[in-house]
Amino acid sequence: MATGTDGGQPDRATGASASRASGRRRGGGRAGNTRRGRVEAVGQLPWGQPINTDKPTEPLHEEGVQAIHEGAMRILEEIGIEFLNEEAKSYLRSAGCDVGSDSDNVRMDRAIVMEQVAKAPESFAITPRDPARTVQIGGGHMAFINVSSPPNCSDLDRGRRVGDRSSYQELIKLSHYFNCIHMLGGYPVEPVDIHASVRHLDCLYDKLTLSDKPVHGYALGKERIEDVMEMVRIAGGLSESEFAAAPRMFTNINSSSPLKHDYPMLDGAMRLARKGQPVIVTPFTLSGAMAPVTLPGAVMQQTAEALAGIVLLQIVNPGTPVVYGCFTSNVDMRTGAPAFGTPEFIRATQMSGQMARFYGLPLRSSNACAANTPDSQSAWESAFSLWACVSSRTNIVYHAAGWLEGGLCASYEKYVMDCETLQQMSAYMRGVQVNADELGFDAIKEVGPNGHFFGTDHTQARYETAFYGPFISDWNNFETWEERGAKSTPERANQIWKDILANFEAPPMDEAIRDELVEFVARRKKAGGAPTDF
Amino acid sequence: MATGTDGGQPDRATGASASRASGRRRGGGRAGNTRRGRVEAVGQLPWGQPINTDKPTEPLHEEGVQAIHEGAMRILEEIGIEFLNEEAKSYLRSAGCDVGSDSDNVRMDRAIVMEQVAKAPESFAITPRDPARTVQIGGGHMAFINVSSPPNCSDLDRGRRVGDRSSYQELIKLSHYFNCIHMLGGYPVEPVDIHASVRHLDCLYDKLTLSDKPVHGYALGKERIEDVMEMVRIAGGLSESEFAAAPRMFTNINSSSPLKHDYPMLDGAMRLARKGQPVIVTPFTLSGAMAPVTLPGAVMQQTAEALAGIVLLQIVNPGTPVVYGCFTSNVDMRTGAPAFGTPEFIRATQMSGQMARFYGLPLRSSNACAANTPDSQSAWESAFSLWACVSSRTNIVYHAAGWLEGGLCASYEKYVMDCETLQQMSAYMRGVQVNADELGFDAIKEVGPNGHFFGTDHTQARYETAFYGPFISDWNNFETWEERGAKSTPERANQIWKDILANFEAPPMDEAIRDELVEFVARRKKAGGAPTDF
Repeated sequence: MATGTDGGQPDRATGASASRASGRRRGGGRAGNTRRGRVEAVGQLPWGQPINTDKPTEPLHEEGVQAIHEGAMRILEEIGIEFLNEEAKSYLRSAGCDVGSDSDNVRMDRAIVMEQVAKAPESFAITPRDPARTVQIGGGHMAFINVSSPPNCSDLDRGRRVGDRSSYQELIKLSHYFNCIHMLGGYPVEPVDIHASVRHLDCLYDKLTLSDKPVHGYALGKERIEDVMEMVRIAGGLSESEFAAAPRMFTNINSSSPLKHDYPMLDGAMRLARKGQPVIVTPFTLSGAMAPVTLPGAVMQQTAEALAGIVLLQIVNPGTPVVYGCFTSNVDMRTGAPAFGTPEFIRATQMSGQMARFYGLPLRSSNACAANTPDSQSAWESAFSLWACVSSRTNIVYHAAGWLEGGLCASYEKYVMDCETLQQMSAYMRGVQVNADELGFDAIKEVGPNGHFFGTDHTQARYETAFYGPFISDWNNFETWEERGAKSTPERANQIWKDILANFEAPPMDEAIRDELVEFVARRKKAGGAPTDF
Repeated sequence: MATGTDGGQPDRATGASASRASGRRRGGGRAGNTRRGRVEAVGQLPWGQPINTDKPTEPLHEEGVQAIHEGAMRILEEIGIEFLNEEAKSYLRSAGCDVGSDSDNVRMDRAIVMEQVAKAPESFAITPRDPARTVQIGGGHMAFINVSSPPNCSDLDRGRRVGDRSSYQELIKLSHYFNCIHMLGGYPVEPVDIHASVRHLDCLYDKLTLSDKPVHGYALGKERIEDVMEMVRIAGGLSESEFAAAPRMFTNINSSSPLKHDYPMLDGAMRLARKGQPVIVTPFTLSGAMAPVTLPGAVMQQTAEALAGIVLLQIVNPGTPVVYGCFTSNVDMRTGAPAFGTPEFIRATQMSGQMARFYGLPLRSSNACAANTPDSQSAWESAFSLWACVSSRTNIVYHAAGWLEGGLCASYEKYVMDCETLQQMSAYMRGVQVNADELGFDAIKEVGPNGHFFGTDHTQARYETAFYGPFISDWNNFETWEERGAKSTPERANQIWKDILANFEAPPMDEAIRDELVEFVARRKKAGGAPTDF
């Protein structure tokens, strides 16, 4: 081995003395910091949102932003967006939009668009049943949400399977457990063993009792979203007016790209808007499939579709909290399958950030991948997706933990691995402080050219908190790693989620409130829940 | 599955028609683009360097940069750096530095430092035996270098083993094959079956005959570096004055942190400097071990150590191309083992970029990880390291492909996986163009609310080149992936490197030049090579 080159290794032997000197795992100090003081299965960071202080990466020049804006306005003015909802059309007509008398096409002048969009707040807070779990949306704040809506789930022990309520509950528990998950999004797996007519009742009951974080409700028609709002109101011990006085929950609607908003999502979104609850409007503009093959074109179409939905919601209730949703990525042109974490995904997300800031709206994007197994491809695709989120100044990261197979599967092991990288991003966003103490000139003088820094006061005063300590990374040398079973990262993740579930404690809930939820679910089930055609 | 939410899947069935319509793999077009026109084992991007046009991420305010500069100057003025080399001390004394008469400590006034550093070029080019392989260093240019100097290597077939010449040659072949590897750095694995006295002769012979890219020579004493310079001169068919007229090769020296430059590296670096050959000066400032536990302190010490070496080289030969090397990362405070791709690594690299730009010097950093196996941990650590390189505006990425185990092992599979992500970063750095054609307003109008974009002229004209096509990612759906053997990413990588090696063709070399190299190696071996004490 060539000595002295940095292909080599620093003095691991010297390093070992630090361990002896310090005597205990530094992770311990941090685990003790966590919000509820309970014993932690992993050394996780305390509850809290990271604040992104970096300047965003902006691939578009100002003229590029203007050109995309101009094109989006022309789409809204000259092509129009279909709104498959009579009530929505009626709102839009009343505000001066050009609504076809015998079609669903709606054209809107840019003056109307900009006037309505200006009514949306740049930032807002969502307050769940435990106000200590309030989540800030907008500005530099980031919020991470679990993987949402996959039909399948998988883990190393039980393999890949269609979702059921038991798996759903387990993934909700993980979502509650990890402090880096700030809100519960859509179902982390679809529990298909519950009939669709009443699924939302059981699912929301589980969400609201197993967790105290802000929850999402699907905008899938009148009954479901009204039930969810009512359950969130009950769980929070709120009167109807208290519920409507501030954001308590949220939804996400997708346009049916190209250029279309569907009935049930519009219906649900308008119901939330009328009660001042936040709506994320996320066009489904996969470049090359439902949107132009060119990224600026796809982002332009995404912008038009998102703004169209936002305009409607501001007409319904001026000031409704909304979020510009970005899901633009490329597809594999051989198969049509969507790809994520690609160079195009990163650029599209960064451009979307520029557009969201142009309109003064918070941004939502995703931590996604196309891989079929939680191996290295999944990790680099997700790492690049997270990079896209951070560098675009995304506010809400959907699918932040657990996503696999382009969203078709929730992986338990991937969930744990993603929480590791989410924590790393949170640590990254602490930024850097520079002052005389941090610079440590005196420590350098004290150590001089023949010592090391392990034992200095400067190090001893800081070693427990100076660096982020990962809970799943194995930093042992090869020999130690091998002696301990040569476990792969997914294998280590497997043990972690099992430990978490085995020791899970739900947050406390007032018994009267729980009873009221139970009663509500029973009553609504008896009434048939939401109508389905099967 | 909840319809219409983006946890779901876009229309893969629709997508499939794009494949039928287009008739062939889009990867084919790009493979045909490659520089030498030979059949490619993978669809790789053509030879060329990415140019980073993004604004770098800068965690330090201007005052932070000034504070680190001020501290580095105080280290050089008040504490001093040890130079364990009489010749170096004599150069430094002659330029007015304060050199202890009976010690190796050298203090230098900031006026001297800044005067000498100003002589270093902001950018330069390295021209190897094939001038078409010239590599630009500085500005927005990025150059990627193979993993350098691990004692071990591993692959899925043969496991982990101590390096030998055969493995060394295989990894050199991979380094030549991949267009995303721009220069051959230190040995991609140490071939310990060649005696250290003559190892450099065989290794350089292999490098210079199996590749035509710029090569590194170890600065490990007089004989080795002189031999390497002579072999590079012969391989290029150059006279001695032609060799010295421009950068033809490079080296990297590491300070022996804290605050020390060792004899052999100084000797080799000065020999290169006298012939105008580039030297990267990379302090070994692992935060918490050989440098302060605080990142600004570690970067401050790194800056002092790097500038000390650079001052010497500018005194030896004003204008010598040099690079500010950054290797600052944190250590695991439990074990002293270095960590890479951490939040601290990213911030330290970004700060180092700010300091390098402050002094007008190109920046070198690394694509590193601490993982022991090419699994998901290795992938996210490397992805975050690459992010550090891109966001810091790094010019030379050392260890860009193949690094595992904190640099103790070169993994064949990791090599291939890293080349995938390097290509993705290259594609990312193409940036975004916005014009009327790219925006595709007419295509959106043509498709309207009820179609898709697969068949449009706008798509057809671009689908082969619009998106980067990865060569190792598996974007098939789960069922297809499973039918095809459910191969993990390392398993796919395994097949790829075997295909590459099976079909490897060395670049052409003039027979007379090859004979001259053979003769030189034989003659120097007969003379005993470089002296060793074993």
